[in-house]
Amino acid sequence: MLNFEDTAPVIDRTVVDIRQRVGVWRQAGDLTALVPTMGALHEGHLALVRAAKNAARRTVVSIFVNPTQFAPTEDLDTYPKNEGADLEALARLGVDAVFMPSAEEMYPPGFATSVMVGGVATDLETDFRPQYLTGVTTVVTKLLLACTPDCAIFGEKDYQQLLVIRRMTGDLGIPTTIIGHATIREPDGLALSSRNAYLTPAERAIAPTLYKSLARAAAAIRARAPIQRILSAASSDLRVAGFKVDYVELRNAETLAPVTDVASEPLRLLAAAWLGKTRLIDNIPA
Amino acid sequence: MLNFEDTAPVIDRTVVDIRQRVGVWRQAGDLTALVPTMGALHEGHLALVRAAKNAARRTVVSIFVNPTQFAPTEDLDTYPKNEGADLEALARLGVDAVFMPSAEEMYPPGFATSVMVGGVATDLETDFRPQYLTGVTTVVTKLLLACTPDCAIFGEKDYQQLLVIRRMTGDLGIPTTIIGHATIREPDGLALSSRNAYLTPAERAIAPTLYKSLARAAAAIRARAPIQRILSAASSDLRVAGFKVDYVELRNAETLAPVTDVASEPLRLLAAAWLGKTRLIDNIPA
Repeated sequence: MLNFEDTAPVIDRTVVDIRQRVGVWRQAGDLTALVPTMGALHEGHLALVRAAKNAARRTVVSIFVNPTQFAPTEDLDTYPKNEGADLEALARLGVDAVFMPSAEEMYPPGFATSVMVGGVATDLETDFRPQYLTGVTTVVTKLLLACTPDCAIFGEKDYQQLLVIRRMTGDLGIPTTIIGHATIREPDGLALSSRNAYLTPAERAIAPTLYKSLARAAAAIRARAPIQRILSAASSDLRVAGFKVDYVELRNAETLAPVTDVASEPLRLLAAAWLGKTRLIDNIPA
Repeated sequence: MLNFEDTAPVIDRTVVDIRQRVGVWRQAGDLTALVPTMGALHEGHLALVRAAKNAARRTVVSIFVNPTQFAPTEDLDTYPKNEGADLEALARLGVDAVFMPSAEEMYPPGFATSVMVGGVATDLETDFRPQYLTGVTTVVTKLLLACTPDCAIFGEKDYQQLLVIRRMTGDLGIPTTIIGHATIREPDGLALSSRNAYLTPAERAIAPTLYKSLARAAAAIRARAPIQRILSAASSDLRVAGFKVDYVELRNAETLAPVTDVASEPLRLLAAAWLGKTRLIDNIPA
């Protein structure tokens, strides 16, 4: 329910409309921050929106469940949707505009272009979800060129995605600064994610083990224990708890290359694992 | 040599500089047209520049020999260069700015992004130069985002390239109109190309056969002769003249798909063939 002081954001459904709106703001001297989302907004998204409001006078949130980043076997059809609640939450935060294009607006008939990134995109998620990051970089290119924001905020929960988007934006010369925002967690450590809604109560009780095993591994790395033993122990913890593990990896936090010198490189621990039919990912500095 | 009434164009070597310059023009209400080139300018390029001057108040020509569209076996190192003559010709035409970035400005260390197009890019040139069109779409994306022109002019001589760039620009939502310009030819029919400079006098004498065989094939198509026989005859004419033929194809002029209905589809004849070490391409409507 909206309070009388809330102002509902304007909804733009076409590229022409949102570009024109942000262009008018720019001519008036206002900076714009974009928060790209797939809807089903939770506190993690709302933290990004608050960061956007701190970064720029004008805030745009895009809501678009991007079909090209889902494999045919994945959860596109069941991906949570809650447009009414999303718009209420964004009104409460004072977002200026919501960009909600249709799939046809983003991918008209004959669409045939993709934006691909090597380097930071070559393994980890790509080994398990081959089309995911190319789907993301292509749609984010389109969203940035449509909304022409001065900055865009992405959560660190999708850490590889954040680095890939930063690489792509710099490489193509898209004039938008990419800002990463720390992961927002439940009190028990579980990273907020729209996909947490899929978890059964029993799975939800186990889910925080993903974060806890990463935190334990990070502590062991700081205590100089051998890396391979630490990562095996983390995987083993997850399996014992009931996860099916896709990966638990220690990587260079900037390049995502395998670590060659633990003492001097910036480090990031990254993991992906399944609880039943739900795939969870998480990462932390080490 | 410059005449006293010629004004040398400003030379910008960084993305920041050219973007700022065109931004100032835009704020003043001036439209900008871009002509992307690899230098070694000939009358074909100058025709594009004249078209640009007709299309917009401000004209930018980019000169960048893009390394990523050459295979290691190709002629990157020997590609003709003539910066002094190029700048003189552009001054004479009253071009406002020339964008001449270094390879490091366009591809800084760690560069890892590419823009790929399916559909119109899937065969023809791609069968023989697999990295060419991806190199082109990536660099043209960067050039359009750097120069932010309202329109950009490309020659029809590189017909598949023109269609691929138009597709890519529309698909990504880059706000630049892509304008194709008819091929400029020598009096004997040879399409102007920087690579014509490679031809020996003997090869130069044979070279117009490429255009003539396409023109003959187009006349035969209009006379309703069987397509396969026409294309075989054109290939055969070229081989007899001394060419090594990569392809002679009749395609839908808009999609480049193989033609299924000669009577109703827009048609384009396209050919690529070698004379000694020089690869020539050409195309005409049919």
